[in-house]
Amino acid sequence: MDIYGAAYYPEHWDEKFWNVHIKVMKEYGIEWVRIGEFMWSVIEPEDGKFDFSVLDKAINILKANDIKVILGTPTATPPAWLTKKYPEMLPVDWHGQVRGFGSRRHYSVNSKPYKDYALRITEKYASRYGDEIDAWQVDNEFGCHGTTYSFANADLEKFRVWLKEKYGNIENLNKAWGTVFWSQNYNDWNEIVFPINTPTFENPHQMLDIYRFMSDSNIEFLKEQVDIIRKHSKKPITHNFMIDFMDLNYRKMAEYIDFVSWDNYIATKDYDPLRQSANHSLMRSIKHKPFLVIEQQPGRVNWRVTNENFDPEYLGMWTKQAYLDGAFGVMPFRFDQIRFGAEQYHGGLLDYAGRPSKRLEAFSKVKNETSGMIEQLKEIAIYFDYENEWIHRISHVNRNFKYWDAVVEIYKAVKNLGYNAEFVFSDDEIDEYKVMIVPYAKYIPEEFSSKLKRFKGPVFVTAMSALKDQNNWIRERIPHNLIDELGLEVVDFGAIDKENGAIMSQNVDVYYWKEEIDIIDSKVIGIFSDCSPMVTQKNNWYYIGTVLDENGWKIVLSDVLKSRVVGRDFEIAKTIDGYVILNLKKDINVVYLNGEKVELKPFECKKL
Amino acid sequence: MDIYGAAYYPEHWDEKFWNVHIKVMKEYGIEWVRIGEFMWSVIEPEDGKFDFSVLDKAINILKANDIKVILGTPTATPPAWLTKKYPEMLPVDWHGQVRGFGSRRHYSVNSKPYKDYALRITEKYASRYGDEIDAWQVDNEFGCHGTTYSFANADLEKFRVWLKEKYGNIENLNKAWGTVFWSQNYNDWNEIVFPINTPTFENPHQMLDIYRFMSDSNIEFLKEQVDIIRKHSKKPITHNFMIDFMDLNYRKMAEYIDFVSWDNYIATKDYDPLRQSANHSLMRSIKHKPFLVIEQQPGRVNWRVTNENFDPEYLGMWTKQAYLDGAFGVMPFRFDQIRFGAEQYHGGLLDYAGRPSKRLEAFSKVKNETSGMIEQLKEIAIYFDYENEWIHRISHVNRNFKYWDAVVEIYKAVKNLGYNAEFVFSDDEIDEYKVMIVPYAKYIPEEFSSKLKRFKGPVFVTAMSALKDQNNWIRERIPHNLIDELGLEVVDFGAIDKENGAIMSQNVDVYYWKEEIDIIDSKVIGIFSDCSPMVTQKNNWYYIGTVLDENGWKIVLSDVLKSRVVGRDFEIAKTIDGYVILNLKKDINVVYLNGEKVELKPFECKKL
Amino acid sequence: MDIYGAAYYPEHWDEKFWNVHIKVMKEYGIEWVRIGEFMWSVIEPEDGKFDFSVLDKAINILKANDIKVILGTPTATPPAWLTKKYPEMLPVDWHGQVRGFGSRRHYSVNSKPYKDYALRITEKYASRYGDEIDAWQVDNEFGCHGTTYSFANADLEKFRVWLKEKYGNIENLNKAWGTVFWSQNYNDWNEIVFPINTPTFENPHQMLDIYRFMSDSNIEFLKEQVDIIRKHSKKPITHNFMIDFMDLNYRKMAEYIDFVSWDNYIATKDYDPLRQSANHSLMRSIKHKPFLVIEQQPGRVNWRVTNENFDPEYLGMWTKQAYLDGAFGVMPFRFDQIRFGAEQYHGGLLDYAGRPSKRLEAFSKVKNETSGMIEQLKEIAIYFDYENEWIHRISHVNRNFKYWDAVVEIYKAVKNLGYNAEFVFSDDEIDEYKVMIVPYAKYIPEEFSSKLKRFKGPVFVTAMSALKDQNNWIRERIPHNLIDELGLEVVDFGAIDKENGAIMSQNVDVYYWKEEIDIIDSKVIGIFSDCSPMVTQKNNWYYIGTVLDENGWKIVLSDVLKSRVVGRDFEIAKTIDGYVILNLKKDINVVYLNGEKVELKPFECKKL
Repeated sequence: MDIYGAAYYPEHWDEKFWNVHIKVMKEYGIEWVRIGEFMWSVIEPEDGKFDFSVLDKAINILKANDIKVILGTPTATPPAWLTKKYPEMLPVDWHGQVRGFGSRRHYSVNSKPYKDYALRITEKYASRYGDEIDAWQVDNEFGCHGTTYSFANADLEKFRVWLKEKYGNIENLNKAWGTVFWSQNYNDWNEIVFPINTPTFENPHQMLDIYRFMSDSNIEFLKEQVDIIRKHSKKPITHNFMIDFMDLNYRKMAEYIDFVSWDNYIATKDYDPLRQSANHSLMRSIKHKPFLVIEQQPGRVNWRVTNENFDPEYLGMWTKQAYLDGAFGVMPFRFDQIRFGAEQYHGGLLDYAGRPSKRLEAFSKVKNETSGMIEQLKEIAIYFDYENEWIHRISHVNRNFKYWDAVVEIYKAVKNLGYNAEFVFSDDEIDEYKVMIVPYAKYIPEEFSSKLKRFKGPVFVTAMSALKDQNNWIRERIPHNLIDELGLEVVDFGAIDKENGAIMSQNVDVYYWKEEIDIIDSKVIGIFSDCSPMVTQKNNWYYIGTVLDENGWKIVLSDVLKSRVVGRDFEIAKTIDGYVILNLKKDINVVYLNGEKVELKPFECKKL
Repeated sequence: MDIYGAAYYPEHWDEKFWNVHIKVMKEYGIEWVRIGEFMWSVIEPEDGKFDFSVLDKAINILKANDIKVILGTPTATPPAWLTKKYPEMLPVDWHGQVRGFGSRRHYSVNSKPYKDYALRITEKYASRYGDEIDAWQVDNEFGCHGTTYSFANADLEKFRVWLKEKYGNIENLNKAWGTVFWSQNYNDWNEIVFPINTPTFENPHQMLDIYRFMSDSNIEFLKEQVDIIRKHSKKPITHNFMIDFMDLNYRKMAEYIDFVSWDNYIATKDYDPLRQSANHSLMRSIKHKPFLVIEQQPGRVNWRVTNENFDPEYLGMWTKQAYLDGAFGVMPFRFDQIRFGAEQYHGGLLDYAGRPSKRLEAFSKVKNETSGMIEQLKEIAIYFDYENEWIHRISHVNRNFKYWDAVVEIYKAVKNLGYNAEFVFSDDEIDEYKVMIVPYAKYIPEEFSSKLKRFKGPVFVTAMSALKDQNNWIRERIPHNLIDELGLEVVDFGAIDKENGAIMSQNVDVYYWKEEIDIIDSKVIGIFSDCSPMVTQKNNWYYIGTVLDENGWKIVLSDVLKSRVVGRDFEIAKTIDGYVILNLKKDINVVYLNGEKVELKPFECKKL
Repeated sequence: MDIYGAAYYPEHWDEKFWNVHIKVMKEYGIEWVRIGEFMWSVIEPEDGKFDFSVLDKAINILKANDIKVILGTPTATPPAWLTKKYPEMLPVDWHGQVRGFGSRRHYSVNSKPYKDYALRITEKYASRYGDEIDAWQVDNEFGCHGTTYSFANADLEKFRVWLKEKYGNIENLNKAWGTVFWSQNYNDWNEIVFPINTPTFENPHQMLDIYRFMSDSNIEFLKEQVDIIRKHSKKPITHNFMIDFMDLNYRKMAEYIDFVSWDNYIATKDYDPLRQSANHSLMRSIKHKPFLVIEQQPGRVNWRVTNENFDPEYLGMWTKQAYLDGAFGVMPFRFDQIRFGAEQYHGGLLDYAGRPSKRLEAFSKVKNETSGMIEQLKEIAIYFDYENEWIHRISHVNRNFKYWDAVVEIYKAVKNLGYNAEFVFSDDEIDEYKVMIVPYAKYIPEEFSSKLKRFKGPVFVTAMSALKDQNNWIRERIPHNLIDELGLEVVDFGAIDKENGAIMSQNVDVYYWKEEIDIIDSKVIGIFSDCSPMVTQKNNWYYIGTVLDENGWKIVLSDVLKSRVVGRDFEIAKTIDGYVILNLKKDINVVYLNGEKVELKPFECKKL
């Protein structure tokens, strides 16, 4: 990988410590830092009074020591003087309550006063540092803490404009939103409000537009910052995406940045290495290019209920996993462990006394085990769409079903069979892949279903797919537009908790959703416990009328994918040169690759 | 039964589909439809601009095809232009938050501007269609989604007037509310506010008046609509009541309507057919007359966490169950399955492509199995009072105790012993019944306790009964006014979770509440596990000093009611001609009625 | 004990009942009553119109019957006319919502209009009754129902003043609060706001100051009342503290009152007698003097989910337990059982008909078993600090850890080994104790660590101790200032759920927190399951790098404390004369004290 770095906060320390920090960086091979992304009140302590002295000095000393700098714009943390001056810039939550000053991300992305100030300081950053630094990060974790969504007046005004642009006239909106239901017809754009604290369920078509609008608003703000930076700098621009995060259409947002970065934290209660891998893969798939882990969990974090310490060697393994999954760099968050502030219990690469920690040693050690770049071959493609995640959130048959979690089960099945998995979006080309999986894709655009029909290899389509149109209406006949290919029609469906089914000769657990399938000319290869059709095949087209877990998917997929590997606690990637295997265990491990025994040392990453 | 129908929404479809729909209705025996109850913005798209063309055409084509029409006033869904003009009409919730536009029922029933507009459109409906249609429904599901309660300024103003009418002067109110406690004395009606977000427990006497006032406010609004309709129409008027719903005093509300209708949905997590039956019985008991199931769950609904599909034959069974329980009609909700709107996943009698579903077939099939009307003989009466439910909600000894759920246990015991159960209210005559059960009736009016004392048959009184007065004060001695009849005094009480007891020779589980009983001259026939008295008998009077489940009730009641039937999964009714038995299982079933074997086909309803 | 009394509410009854009540009091030995603390609207029914007739008469009749009176100021229940006049006096909760009129404690302690009225009526009470009554109670349960905290404008204004006084200039505040983190720098006191509904975690240094300020605000209000009363009366003044209650710094508050009182209710779901004892001990330790149980749970309460009845003999036992733990009096709440109001289900010493209950009998009976006063010898001291409880609340490693609950485990271990446990505060002298325990004390002031270093006996220091400074910053090296004494450094830490460990030869469960300990020159006497050091000893200094339960503490402490007693369900105190043992069981019990058998009757309190 090219980038070994860490987040660094010179402003948190008396200048006398900087040299000490940099000395340790050099000693342990930290060659990049990300700085500056929460410095607004340091740089602009009062309205219009700019003081870059701290940042100037920090950049100078870093550059003088050949440490490369990613500079973040500080717009995620508007200062107290700004929110005091423009309290209307504060975001408003789903309950209609203002979200106050006192932490971070306390701004509505549609507030004009906020944006004026945010773009002004972006301009100051960009014009001052231009090409002097090495890369840019815009803002910090758009949408974190639910801040994608704000329902302030400014948001409503913008939403009405967005709708007007989309629908042209109010009658089109009324049709698309089905406002004849429950008497919700609008005569005028100004009658439209956000559904705050409504007595019961909201209009699902309106909700989908709200999710789209909120994502677009954030993308627009990113683009405005990017445009300003590009006026002053040729250096690449990125933004730090988040794990398991679906509020923003990252695919669309990524059009405006030069490379994808993301923050690799363990977001679920239990740590599952392949969930991290699924996120790596999604991040890689957004541009189908290498990506940067711009923040890497170093060990303990501070924001869980129970913030456990991980053995320092985990940081080494996580770094190797990123490498295997196509990262061009890893930057633990953060270099300097902080004694104060809302993240005072978050681990770092130093300890509280400023001494190198075992985490820093572990991170440093993996540098020479991760040379070059791993490029995974195109093998299995999983169709993914952020808008489908929003559609799944809105009106429900089964509220316990979670789109991304169900997709991760498929990802894990593919990986554990020994194949590479890549996510594809509707505008991607899919010809090069061997197998297509189209899971839980409630809405499939025409553009993509046409590609599917031309696809030569096996196609796996699941329950719920092609159930909805672009306005979130249910289709007349399901799966829309694929009835002929699949040789069946779904005539009814309903929620289940957990039931049994059988696929070919094996029993499987099925979850969440059960369809009533009318077979037209497909072959039944799986049944529900009541013997009704569950899995079917017609030529290259498979249909699964329910939700399967990793195990069920392995069984279904094994009809076309012979398992390459036997083992546990590993991650494997196929490259043009062979295979790369990572031992996910802090113990000796053995797997059989294509029948051959492979011995792995603790956390070893081996090329074969 | 007389009415086989369904809810229908012509406004949701292009007119060209209407003929298709009506053709299917005719073919499958749908003779009635309910329409119009969410059409406000269709009829009055702008303030004062009325356009009845769609409704006119729909009614005409329905009538032309001999389909009878129940027309609903559209007041549950005020249009966007109205809430924009009068935002103060929006309801305010228990936390003081406005409940916004964007779903339905977003109005305070005490808002003058809202009511002016609601009654104006009611007048328009009534004057236009008068006796042309066949019956009227007022509004839709008053109180649904917690909307019985609103704490806006208009509600407070009306509450003060209501209190003034009730108490005459403020001193009477202070006495009734015990405002000397915690220094809550009022000098003036204007000092009274709703207890919103109070630091701790509210005044229980004030709370009871709030529940009464909110119920009365809804009843007043219904009455105002009814009065307007009656000026223009001789056709019967109803309102659709809800399952397990206790916020409104339906007994009082029903005085103003011609027949009781209700919406038969499965409201609990697990489906229990006899809970549905208990609700049928309550609905029948409100007027002690046949009732209409104006909305019948067809299969899948959309508002649960997991919305399962029911086998289509269930719709047939549910229809027969309503018939057995005294319904004069059943109307599944809804005929046309809708592809859009907040209920897009709710099942219908058609499928999404407009084709007849198996549910429609199942519904159609039962028509000739449900001829005539079932009239159950008066046998066992269970005392019921909506105000008691409110009293149970307020100050608690055991918050886990739920009045209606505990009453349903008794209902199930009576039914499974093979007897008819009817609910009686304090102003009902009770002489004709064989047995009286007075469960958990914290307040028993003098009017009713006098009737009890004159009653000839066995009387079962339970824990908590006659513990409170009409102002929600605890009585000095308990059970108030019945100490002599029962031959005991309850000298103390407290909450329990679940304990053991014994009644006669059998062990029982007891729940929620345990009383310390001083025996005066009654006989102990049941004890708690600490051997203190639990169940007593004095002549015809039984007392149960705790809460029993269905099983415990069967044991207690068997002292006076010999079990008529042995079996499972059945519902039975005794009529003047004999018995009607419904098999609740989708399997062959066998029960023994008075010792004789009865064989039942799946879901069969058999007269014996 | 000196005081046998009860809370009494003459204003809740027609005067004709007073003589009946007093007759029962005399008969059963009730010699003290607390009255008047919720009478504001009785005394001042309208703004400025005072009517003391009821209170005058009540006091006269009580005094005429030689019943002593504790008079409470009525400031916990401002009347409706006052909140109507000054709605801005209502408190505002953590979500920014006003907490309305309709229960009690509906005031912001920093509201000027509220305070003007509250101090005016305090002056009226004090000047009228002066030394005529026997003792004073100020307000009622400061902070109950979360009312320590209010975020209204008046609170914010006062908070800014408080900060200004503390920090002098804004730059000091910025440093102490580490506002450079997340760009929270303030230029002006008026930019500071409460962090209401912030997107994510608040500033932990600001939070600690908020907790301090809110506690101080209540203390200031108490002091203002005390100052007024002292102008008119020489009688002792108290305030009723609460169980398990940590929002207020009672140690600091108690400086302004003459003796500590507290309200002994069972605050946890399950009743644990030694938790009550731990609270007794904390109350005793606040002034290291005898205290009054000014409210004693009589049996059933009304504010739980399930309010069970206790056998009446429990009241006797609870009274004896207070006696054993150093109380000089016990006053059940309340004498007269009330039929109305928000506490209508709360038990009393009379029944609802006004007859003496078995609880009254049980209470009366223990009077001659509790003569004199029990003074426990100083043996084991547990360091306690209200501010540490606040620090534990704020930023977390493990949110499931609760400071006071963890301290209670230690208290129980000491007591069950047969030793007295006393709490000590940082400004207490500690020389007389035999053993010091310093548990979970995140911040230890210099003043106290110096005393520890001079202490001669064994010192037990635990995980988390000395981790923070007075501003809630993490220290550079841990345990701060005690590394030499303990012979170790804590180099890292993290959360755990529950794990196994071993101390000396015994297995123990360990919880919540696990430290990585670098041994300098201490001896390892306990290990985690991964064999890393967990418990160490260096001379008299012990260190426990995790959280233990009662059992674990008994094992650790037994290294220096030989168990004096074997048995279950007892509480023991060592006095200068010997031992006092209370049987906590309503059954015969046997314990072995220093190897000698002691037989105890049900709930017996025996001196040995």
